[in-house]
Amino acid sequence: MTDPACIFCKILEGDIPAVKVLESPDCLAFMDIGPLAEGHVLLIPASHVETIDKMSAAGAAAMLGLLPRLVGAVQAATGCAGVNVLQNNGPAAHQEVMHVHFHIIPRNPGDAFHFNWPAGKYPNGRIEELAEAIRQELD
Amino acid sequence: MTDPACIFCKILEGDIPAVKVLESPDCLAFMDIGPLAEGHVLLIPASHVETIDKMSAAGAAAMLGLLPRLVGAVQAATGCAGVNVLQNNGPAAHQEVMHVHFHIIPRNPGDAFHFNWPAGKYPNGRIEELAEAIRQELD
Repeated sequence: MTDPACIFCKILEGDIPAVKVLESPDCLAFMDIGPLAEGHVLLIPASHVETIDKMSAAGAAAMLGLLPRLVGAVQAATGCAGVNVLQNNGPAAHQEVMHVHFHIIPRNPGDAFHFNWPAGKYPNGRIEELAEAIRQELD
Repeated sequence: MTDPACIFCKILEGDIPAVKVLESPDCLAFMDIGPLAEGHVLLIPASHVETIDKMSAAGAAAMLGLLPRLVGAVQAATGCAGVNVLQNNGPAAHQEVMHVHFHIIPRNPGDAFHFNWPAGKYPNGRIEELAEAIRQELD
């Protein structure tokens, strides 16, 4: 269930130290050692899986049911103004460690982390076409 | 359970149209009409709640157990190279609609959406201090 070449699996196995905040049979939450802000936490599944689409529904539910409590605790402990929850799938989406991880990133006005929001618009009919293609993949 | 002033509640109530891809008693997934990329989907809880820390564990689990299937379907339908899952809590974290929503954002090399990654470093002892503060809030 773990990959010997994966740094997060090594943390799960205790072969690499980590500063843990929450542990369950399904997952682990620990401090990111390269934080985007003070209190940046990572939440990972206890089994090796590269991207979220490859997780089971039950595995995702067991892990992500902890998000409300974890985000609340990070916010209370740091006093931050907001929090981004970010999970990157694939190098094109900035995934660096190929073991699913949810970033819990404390945010404050004027802080270092930022993203743009280049909201586009669909030409007529395109949104329905895409939705239909997605619905077909869900079946 | 819904807020009459909330645009996502109006979508849930059917008062504003949306192009839906997946619906359950707990949540709704629909197309973002201001997409960061073709196939940008939003996943929201069926009850009005402003930020993820205010959701119940069961509510988050029921909604987020759908993420694997939904991300997989968006990826298959769009053929994108990667996917960001992003959830913003509070205006400081770029939340614009105050009803919890998870963005599923298809990514491709050279696309329009981007973020920086200003990874920092903790001075000696600081990571343990913060972890202890977070653990105390979790109790």
